Amino acid sequence: MNSFKFELIHQSQKSRARVGRIHTPHGIIDTPNFVAVGTNGTLKALDNALVSEIGLQLMFCNTYHLLLQPGTEVVRQAGGLHKFIHRHLPIITDSGGFQVFSLAYGSVADELKSRGTKKEGGSVLKITEDGVLFRSYRDGQKLLLTPESSIQAQKDLGADIIIPFDELPPYHMPAADLKRSLARTHRWEMRSLEAHLKNPQGQAMYGVIHGGIDPLLRKESCDFLTKQAFDGFAIGGSIGKNRSEMFELLKTTMPHLPEEKPVHLLGIGDLPSLRQCVPLGIDTFDSSYPTRSARHGVLLTDEGGINITKASYARDFGAPCLECSCPTCTKFTAAYLHHLFKAREITALTLATVHNLHFMVELMRKMRERILANEL
Amino acid sequence: MNSFKFELIHQSQKSRARVGRIHTPHGIIDTPNFVAVGTNGTLKALDNALVSEIGLQLMFCNTYHLLLQPGTEVVRQAGGLHKFIHRHLPIITDSGGFQVFSLAYGSVADELKSRGTKKEGGSVLKITEDGVLFRSYRDGQKLLLTPESSIQAQKDLGADIIIPFDELPPYHMPAADLKRSLARTHRWEMRSLEAHLKNPQGQAMYGVIHGGIDPLLRKESCDFLTKQAFDGFAIGGSIGKNRSEMFELLKTTMPHLPEEKPVHLLGIGDLPSLRQCVPLGIDTFDSSYPTRSARHGVLLTDEGGINITKASYARDFGAPCLECSCPTCTKFTAAYLHHLFKAREITALTLATVHNLHFMVELMRKMRERILANEL
Repeated sequence: MNSFKFELIHQSQKSRARVGRIHTPHGIIDTPNFVAVGTNGTLKALDNALVSEIGLQLMFCNTYHLLLQPGTEVVRQAGGLHKFIHRHLPIITDSGGFQVFSLAYGSVADELKSRGTKKEGGSVLKITEDGVLFRSYRDGQKLLLTPESSIQAQKDLGADIIIPFDELPPYHMPAADLKRSLARTHRWEMRSLEAHLKNPQGQAMYGVIHGGIDPLLRKESCDFLTKQAFDGFAIGGSIGKNRSEMFELLKTTMPHLPEEKPVHLLGIGDLPSLRQCVPLGIDTFDSSYPTRSARHGVLLTDEGGINITKASYARDFGAPCLECSCPTCTKFTAAYLHHLFKAREITALTLATVHNLHFMVELMRKMRERILANEL
Repeated sequence: MNSFKFELIHQSQKSRARVGRIHTPHGIIDTPNFVAVGTNGTLKALDNALVSEIGLQLMFCNTYHLLLQPGTEVVRQAGGLHKFIHRHLPIITDSGGFQVFSLAYGSVADELKSRGTKKEGGSVLKITEDGVLFRSYRDGQKLLLTPESSIQAQKDLGADIIIPFDELPPYHMPAADLKRSLARTHRWEMRSLEAHLKNPQGQAMYGVIHGGIDPLLRKESCDFLTKQAFDGFAIGGSIGKNRSEMFELLKTTMPHLPEEKPVHLLGIGDLPSLRQCVPLGIDTFDSSYPTRSARHGVLLTDEGGINITKASYARDFGAPCLECSCPTCTKFTAAYLHHLFKAREITALTLATVHNLHFMVELMRKMRERILANEL
């Protein structure tokens, strides 16, 4: 039943970078690859038929959001997430932990990067060994998220790859607290794995490596989790306040993970990070960066992002990005895209997102070629 | 050079409804037909390649908006509006008069329906025989719109069908003032026609019939304008405070227009109005109603609009509209579309707009079939 399999195709002679193939019930993911985030079951400003056409092989959906709207029970009744959102290719869901701990510590994204706390909508009422009791930002309803309920939700959704429930400690945490948090995360991950294995449904589960920015705790997490029956690993939690801290931490952590299983880096997918982390042997990366940038008028190119809303594009009647073969660049000009942003047209968001997603698909394809040629 | 031609295919034996074909430099418009509004050179939430695929034969763009952003000079440099917005099929532009008089009288749309005045951004500084001096809502710049400058802007844009500059009197206007306004509109239309004929560029110009809700003034306007070298006619200005007043006015006005030229009804395109006005012999109708409704979650069906945001659609796993062959209804369910609206996803706006536009294209195709069969 479980058709999940990681196939290692080529190990670069130049670095730990490798080319592989993740087989899932909904098809293959060529690795290394970029994973776009479709929080509510859609990439913002695109429909899923178009996303598949562009060639995005793995899509990331957020259990927390889908739990609150439309409810995972509705998705189950619809026949699962693939059917509900009209996606025939692989999907990965997270556990909801990231979002629910954002309610406790402010934006986790900010916190992970040590930008201090910022309170958002909703609120956490209680954190216990059992799980997290929180209030829905949608209707004020009290909800309990536990390892078991997170896995139940992910069973309802039926993604190809699922994630155990974990605790997201803030960047600034005393060493003793971080150690206690890691121990609890490991207990929660074991409960998650147990709940998953009672009813595998052909899904794969990636263990999440924690330990904050302490290399020894990261190693401890690897040592513990790699002994369990996980199908792959994800690197989660706070991994540094900047890219060089992250890079150093990943460099010491990656050798503790087994070669024969895929590794996903949670929430990181900007271009410089991809270029630095693929040579470390990381296989997949999810990030809302390319789609969010697009909505701010930033088009990704090999030379970095260009801001199409700048006045210099007002009379640029060439393609938004030269030599790009995406549906946007082959049909529309920089001047027109500039105009659509200036006129605040929704169409601008769609056209820019199409470009950025196509760019990521091509970028990763080219990276795989370079690894196969031992150039990376 | 001017390849504009109206071909009358069939006159219904049951009413004044007729089937025709408008030939333009960018292809054929089968009539009667619906004209979608793409104010800034795009239909909201769709790109123009998709709009063409759906089969929309004529698109309406607003000169006033394009004059302010990106500027018609930029569009001219781009090679004209078709090239700038990537549309290969016919386009019609208006004169800018409607919007500029909204600044003077509040929203003209409200005023035409006698809902009283409501001030919007920007302001009219002076109305003279020459034209209208107004302040741009974008950058505060003073701009003069005259018959000649409106036509120059429409020459820069290069639409297949253009509209002379006219005065938009409010619904509530004393009879003597309305008569004076009509006379000025006729003078402005003649100046527009003269400017147009100096450099036809293969474009067609429709004279705009005015006269408010006074049938005698409407007849006077028809009598005067049908003697001029216009390629077709548009019915503009206030045509009644409700549908029955509009219907009565159009019924008495239409017989004063020549059979051999196409007639466009400006700004009206809701389903009941279409059903009432096609039998009067009106050939084309523009309205933002189907696209705007879509963005509010209203999907058009043969039985009227359904609101997909209603709770009853949360677990409806059938197509949003049964028996609809549009890209949205063939791929996505009512429950998913409902979810996307609830989650405030931009994708919802696109999917709903695709459906409504496809619906209008099909509705008009079926109407033409019924006219050919003398059933309408």
